[in-house]
Amino acid sequence: MPAILIEPVARLIESFARLPGIGPKTAQRLTFHLLRAPETEARTLAAALIAMREQVVFCERCFNISDRPVCSICSDGGRDITKLCVVEEPLDVLALERTGEFKGLYHVLHGAISPIDGVGPERLKVRQLIERADEAQRAGERLEEVVIATNPTLEGEATAMYLAERLEPLVGIVTRIARGLPVGGDLEYADEVTLIRALQGRRPIQ
Amino acid sequence: MPAILIEPVARLIESFARLPGIGPKTAQRLTFHLLRAPETEARTLAAALIAMREQVVFCERCFNISDRPVCSICSDGGRDITKLCVVEEPLDVLALERTGEFKGLYHVLHGAISPIDGVGPERLKVRQLIERADEAQRAGERLEEVVIATNPTLEGEATAMYLAERLEPLVGIVTRIARGLPVGGDLEYADEVTLIRALQGRRPIQ
Repeated sequence: MPAILIEPVARLIESFARLPGIGPKTAQRLTFHLLRAPETEARTLAAALIAMREQVVFCERCFNISDRPVCSICSDGGRDITKLCVVEEPLDVLALERTGEFKGLYHVLHGAISPIDGVGPERLKVRQLIERADEAQRAGERLEEVVIATNPTLEGEATAMYLAERLEPLVGIVTRIARGLPVGGDLEYADEVTLIRALQGRRPIQ
Repeated sequence: MPAILIEPVARLIESFARLPGIGPKTAQRLTFHLLRAPETEARTLAAALIAMREQVVFCERCFNISDRPVCSICSDGGRDITKLCVVEEPLDVLALERTGEFKGLYHVLHGAISPIDGVGPERLKVRQLIERADEAQRAGERLEEVVIATNPTLEGEATAMYLAERLEPLVGIVTRIARGLPVGGDLEYADEVTLIRALQGRRPIQ
């Protein structure tokens, strides 16, 4: 940065540029926007950042984000505790909850197994997942179904295979969410792998 | 947002989404990144935001961003005070300073005239620009050249025409930066208007 860029501005640009998906140009644009916007805008963002870090924890059971030790889903007596859905990220819980289709509990791995990126199972909440299934079994409340809802990517599939192998002796059944054509999608433009999955997953029309 | 999204997280997503060019999905991604990143990352960003708003002012002469009442360019005795370059944004000053080609002073308009967006000259630092030229003339230090370096857009061109008319009686000459083919560009892919400008702006080969 040339000397003309005064230090507090350069520092904010740098902070923005450290965020994922924010390049130096976008960081500059955001900074100059906040410079000209009413002062409250920058202050509100700063306050929201600090409040988030101070008030948000991970649920000690499912590792979803929460504002208390056990999250609202885990402490909700109306959920089906015999079903567990395993996802990569807290955002995935949000997406699934929006559907209203799943009434069980969740387990957030905080990533997927990716040897290329050096992410092994020990970097994820895998041990805690196995322990949950194990403890339920010992308590005579064996999980009936664990739905593996990791992403349909190379890493997500590898994680699903890995988990299925470890969970099988501990739970009733391990299932995987369906891969196929997205609703509203176009067969003509679907990639080969998706088409293969869609054919393999075909079901009789009711 | 579903009820499951706890309040401090929802608030941060909202704050991010209010920034220009940041949609709700990106705002979610940034928030969840900061949730998992070391706590210092969110705190550094918050501190940078507050420091920026507390320490940055606009130069009282050229309206560039500054950490003191008169910016480092305006108070630099080595600059050519007979030349003034008019730009839309502080970022434009940065871009021009990086070239090292212009040794005069600047004037930042903080936008361009845009009737569609309801931005007239009174919303910009136009009056202050005319006053600068006027005062220099009265003091017997008439500006030799004012370079209008607003963007080569509809708004930028309209602003340039408007300013040229008002500045002409007060300064030696009003010039406009050249429009033409970008260096490294390809004639084949240039748009018509750019080609017309490139032809109109042709100069003898030295």
